[in-house]
Amino acid sequence: MEYPSKLVERAVDEISHLPGIGKKTALRLVLHLLKQPEESTSQLSTALNELRANIKYCRTCHMIADEDQCIHCNSSYRDPSVICVVEDSPDVLAITNTGEYNGLFHVLGGRISPMDGIGPDHVKIDSLVSRVKNRKEEIKEIVLALSATMEGDTTAYYISKVLKDTGVKITTIARGISVGSEIEYADEVTLGRSIVTRTEMGD
Amino acid sequence: MEYPSKLVERAVDEISHLPGIGKKTALRLVLHLLKQPEESTSQLSTALNELRANIKYCRTCHMIADEDQCIHCNSSYRDPSVICVVEDSPDVLAITNTGEYNGLFHVLGGRISPMDGIGPDHVKIDSLVSRVKNRKEEIKEIVLALSATMEGDTTAYYISKVLKDTGVKITTIARGISVGSEIEYADEVTLGRSIVTRTEMGD
Repeated sequence: MEYPSKLVERAVDEISHLPGIGKKTALRLVLHLLKQPEESTSQLSTALNELRANIKYCRTCHMIADEDQCIHCNSSYRDPSVICVVEDSPDVLAITNTGEYNGLFHVLGGRISPMDGIGPDHVKIDSLVSRVKNRKEEIKEIVLALSATMEGDTTAYYISKVLKDTGVKITTIARGISVGSEIEYADEVTLGRSIVTRTEMGD
Repeated sequence: MEYPSKLVERAVDEISHLPGIGKKTALRLVLHLLKQPEESTSQLSTALNELRANIKYCRTCHMIADEDQCIHCNSSYRDPSVICVVEDSPDVLAITNTGEYNGLFHVLGGRISPMDGIGPDHVKIDSLVSRVKNRKEEIKEIVLALSATMEGDTTAYYISKVLKDTGVKITTIARGISVGSEIEYADEVTLGRSIVTRTEMGD
């Protein structure tokens, strides 16, 4: 595509680095910004710069935070006896949005993937172990909410091994047929697994 | 939605002001930026700031430009005897991308819309008229490429009236059935109009 200006081309180029945004959408956004008052662009860029410069990560659970402690670890309304282990920050948001979980979190920052050279030391498993050991009396359950992939399973298995000594109950979120989906169209691995791990009615 | 940080919330808020980007997509983009090196965010915000601060508009045709003259008005490869009148900069890009037009442009910066209080003085018709009058010998044709709406038609009618004295040929882009579409599903106004303005085969 021929751009009317080098400035437009550069802005399009930068915006199209964002996931799910191609050159065409980026150009649409750039032309939109040019039509808005100059403040709206400077507000946007200031917000992005400040986000990147000042964001912190919770010392306890490694979740995105404004302070040294995140809103969950800081909250007196959340149950400190359960810790839900997730791969990344968006997972925390997805789980809190369900409204079905009221415990604390632990963000690993990835998952063990030997194929990509990511070992247990590259994700925050050590800090999970010391967190559990330091508060052994308080913590009753660790819920593993990891991806339903080989890497997620590997990570879950590793965590369950290293936490075995602590005697804390370790659970994993249920896998099975998605709510609202029809049996006929479910993939066979999921369907097979949901039969094996069937639960009693009323549970 | 509950955001993990005020900084995240503010960035999401600013990004979701962009057209076609909701809060959910904005959050995805913010979390993506947080995973990238800090430079990628600063490059993005710098590109946006410089775009907005340094962009110029062509003195002749009002198209987005880096200099006082845009790439089209500056080009010796384009035919200066034809001027295509469009509503906005994206229209110029759309028309040049077809590869079927090699003349110059004139960007009105809007269309006459009495309902919204936009009169002929709010769009750049005066400068079009003086442009045509100043280069009367050189300019052979004005092509109106305006929206196929009531406002676009009003604008086209007004321009054809004010340019009548100049004696320059005024044309408008063809309206009819889109290429690739089936007659059965065409809307009836378009279909009716395409019958009235039918052209001889081979044209």
